[in-house]
Amino acid sequence: MSDPKCDIGVIGLGNMGRNLVLNLADKGFTVGVYNRTTEKTDEFMSHEAGGRSIQAGRTLREFVDLLEPPRSVLLIVSAGKAVDAVIDELTPLLGESDLIIDGGNSHFSDTDWRAAKVEKLDLGYLGMGISGGEEGARHGPSLMPGGHKQAYDRVHYILEKAAAQVDGEPCVTFLGSGSAGHYVKMVHNGIEYAFMEMIAETYDLLHRGAGLGPEQLAPIYRGWSQGELGSYLLEITARIFEVKDPQSDHFLVDMILDQAKQKGTGKWTSQDAMELQEPTPTIDGAVSMRNLSVHGQLRQQLEERLGRSEPVQIEPERLSSLLESALYTGLILTFSQGMALLAGASRKYEYGLKLEEVCRIWRGGCIIRAKLLERLRLAYQDRPDLPCLLLDHELGEQVRSGAPALREVVSLAAASGIPAPGLMASLAYLDAMRSEHLPTNLVQAQRDFFGGHTFERVDREGVFHHQWQQSRGSV
Amino acid sequence: MSDPKCDIGVIGLGNMGRNLVLNLADKGFTVGVYNRTTEKTDEFMSHEAGGRSIQAGRTLREFVDLLEPPRSVLLIVSAGKAVDAVIDELTPLLGESDLIIDGGNSHFSDTDWRAAKVEKLDLGYLGMGISGGEEGARHGPSLMPGGHKQAYDRVHYILEKAAAQVDGEPCVTFLGSGSAGHYVKMVHNGIEYAFMEMIAETYDLLHRGAGLGPEQLAPIYRGWSQGELGSYLLEITARIFEVKDPQSDHFLVDMILDQAKQKGTGKWTSQDAMELQEPTPTIDGAVSMRNLSVHGQLRQQLEERLGRSEPVQIEPERLSSLLESALYTGLILTFSQGMALLAGASRKYEYGLKLEEVCRIWRGGCIIRAKLLERLRLAYQDRPDLPCLLLDHELGEQVRSGAPALREVVSLAAASGIPAPGLMASLAYLDAMRSEHLPTNLVQAQRDFFGGHTFERVDREGVFHHQWQQSRGSV
Repeated sequence: MSDPKCDIGVIGLGNMGRNLVLNLADKGFTVGVYNRTTEKTDEFMSHEAGGRSIQAGRTLREFVDLLEPPRSVLLIVSAGKAVDAVIDELTPLLGESDLIIDGGNSHFSDTDWRAAKVEKLDLGYLGMGISGGEEGARHGPSLMPGGHKQAYDRVHYILEKAAAQVDGEPCVTFLGSGSAGHYVKMVHNGIEYAFMEMIAETYDLLHRGAGLGPEQLAPIYRGWSQGELGSYLLEITARIFEVKDPQSDHFLVDMILDQAKQKGTGKWTSQDAMELQEPTPTIDGAVSMRNLSVHGQLRQQLEERLGRSEPVQIEPERLSSLLESALYTGLILTFSQGMALLAGASRKYEYGLKLEEVCRIWRGGCIIRAKLLERLRLAYQDRPDLPCLLLDHELGEQVRSGAPALREVVSLAAASGIPAPGLMASLAYLDAMRSEHLPTNLVQAQRDFFGGHTFERVDREGVFHHQWQQSRGSV
Repeated sequence: MSDPKCDIGVIGLGNMGRNLVLNLADKGFTVGVYNRTTEKTDEFMSHEAGGRSIQAGRTLREFVDLLEPPRSVLLIVSAGKAVDAVIDELTPLLGESDLIIDGGNSHFSDTDWRAAKVEKLDLGYLGMGISGGEEGARHGPSLMPGGHKQAYDRVHYILEKAAAQVDGEPCVTFLGSGSAGHYVKMVHNGIEYAFMEMIAETYDLLHRGAGLGPEQLAPIYRGWSQGELGSYLLEITARIFEVKDPQSDHFLVDMILDQAKQKGTGKWTSQDAMELQEPTPTIDGAVSMRNLSVHGQLRQQLEERLGRSEPVQIEPERLSSLLESALYTGLILTFSQGMALLAGASRKYEYGLKLEEVCRIWRGGCIIRAKLLERLRLAYQDRPDLPCLLLDHELGEQVRSGAPALREVVSLAAASGIPAPGLMASLAYLDAMRSEHLPTNLVQAQRDFFGGHTFERVDREGVFHHQWQQSRGSV
């Protein structure tokens, strides 16, 4: 008797794919797997997959035949051309109502046209963001699927078991139509960039600014991760500071080159935020700092030429306490930007996003999971159309009470010469958002002066132009 | 005897087009004109064009017949579909070696494929940025052409006469291949956004922060415009503060709505800078502030909820002096970002830009013209491959001596709650660029921790991954 047909197939046995397959098998599903390089498949089957309900196809045809129709195929391959190559090879082998789920970090606009292309073949298509890294994939990630609801309904029982569970609820839901899933994942990553940048700034102030080493930093970040800043990223930060370099007697973090790599999702977030005219300055700052960091040699020359930073003039204990509060405030301000972007994107791309659900499925499994997300969920539960998180009473109060620390940290950073673009952008965002009157009237006057671009007035409707150079009435 | 054939034809009689035609006629050229809406042509011909060497075509065919072959046709139409519509209608009427110059604010990538399309028809194509607004167009703009050098050589004598003149040199040159001209103009506009944003921030600090009104602001900005900050934008800013509202007894600037519009070139600059991984944080901040400014009602609600800004705790005279120095420093830092972006774009898109020439043609005619540009030109004359303006000795010294004022202004803004994202981003850029060691090592550790993304080390070549969770050696 042959093996039972598989509940789901997974293509791509990289780090994420392998862990997700093991996760699915542990949750009781039979999984078919395929990888372009057969050696990888063989190695996986003879090691981690051993004894589990996992079957491998050595060709795509074999793989497809392993799956129970209507088939569900999850792609975990690198975003870009690889996705198209797999889809082009795969679709001729599939039958009506079979379903392709792109579980990679595809750009949302690619997901839109791919879905249209695949659906024309009478196949289903879901674009699904997956967050949680290898660990999340293995034990329960946050899953962000979007597309047609019917397609989701076909596989929801699998995804719900695979996902992280928080308070008995799976960190997955049908997010919305089209590329909603990949868009939400993209913004998740943009927020992740910003959170990581601001954590790095607090580290810089404590390390370069106050002279603390990893052994002193570990308990500080551990402490923060047990308070209102409770979050995966702070937990791993605390852990990172504990780790000794296996190859020297230093701490490992001190041996790592300070030049950041990126896969592009943060960049995409900022680029599309600008497209939609939604301000995401903290995310933008994080993206540009990663780009700036790669100029190591230039930075070294400029430190010699222009002088280095100065110690921060404050007691380390008080600095640490200010930073905890500033970082928490900055995190709320970053979520305010990210959620507003999601709202704007949902209007523009007609995703039909429910922001409460987004917050709910981000509470567990994903990289930006944090205690704060339950608070954000409640804000949207209270008022689903909340135009800005800062209008929520409790979050507004938290920002109000955290703002003085953020102000002081920005001043300390400015005075000591330690760069804090993320925290600075968060503060500027807060202060601009709470400015009934911005100085943008001058910008509009300038634009009308040099380009005849017209302006609106505060006292009447309409569009106006002034002959600035010829007008009389000077003082 | 019929009129002599025209030296150049201009399509599009909007504000920019009309003024450019008058400029060309004043410089001794005969100009053919065409506008889609004939009424506009008729009005122009019967008013401003009267008595000048300007001839009008009422159809495109008539217009083309007015021009001396090989013909040169300058398009001054709105970027986007209008350009394609005109090109599609125009090209069948043109003959071999005729030349189309797109003088609008086209996205550089559009210019690349349009040039390829037009050149396939054995026609020439130039993408040319024009800056200077209506006034510049009328009396001498800065012209930024790119494409094939032979095409430029056909019309250089016209462009050189039409352009602004500085020290006897025209503010135009052949910038480079492909879309070089439109790219340079795009970055010009990105710098313009950043300069305007930082000026607006100084205004906000003096106005909301120190309580100064337009009659006090005008002489302050006039004074700055006569010092090292000498620039068109500061001149018009001073002038703006002098202008009374014709419809009330207020100053006009106080009656203008504080919600900025934009045409997209600043956004494109930030988007492509992110694409090329070149940091332009001050420009990014300016773009996001324009986007934020449109949320007027929300800002009003948030000011009520979260409290308004406080007065700046400093004497207005001293504040003004600090701001002058901070703004000048911020301007150098913005140019440092913009010029580095141009260098990166020139490498990526193979434009062959000469940055000294870019600075030279920006010294006059254009919106960002400023005394500083001669200093920048000298820096690149001295060292054409200068990787960063801050490495130039004199500019480095200027930044070093201006930085304390910038630090103090950022602290004052942070303390008073007046948003200064542009000045803050400039300072953070400076401090990050002069940091031999950034805290990005932590970012890389986090990425390796949660995603297995690997890291590089400071002490040896290679790419490394660590099992962060399992490792021993904790403190």
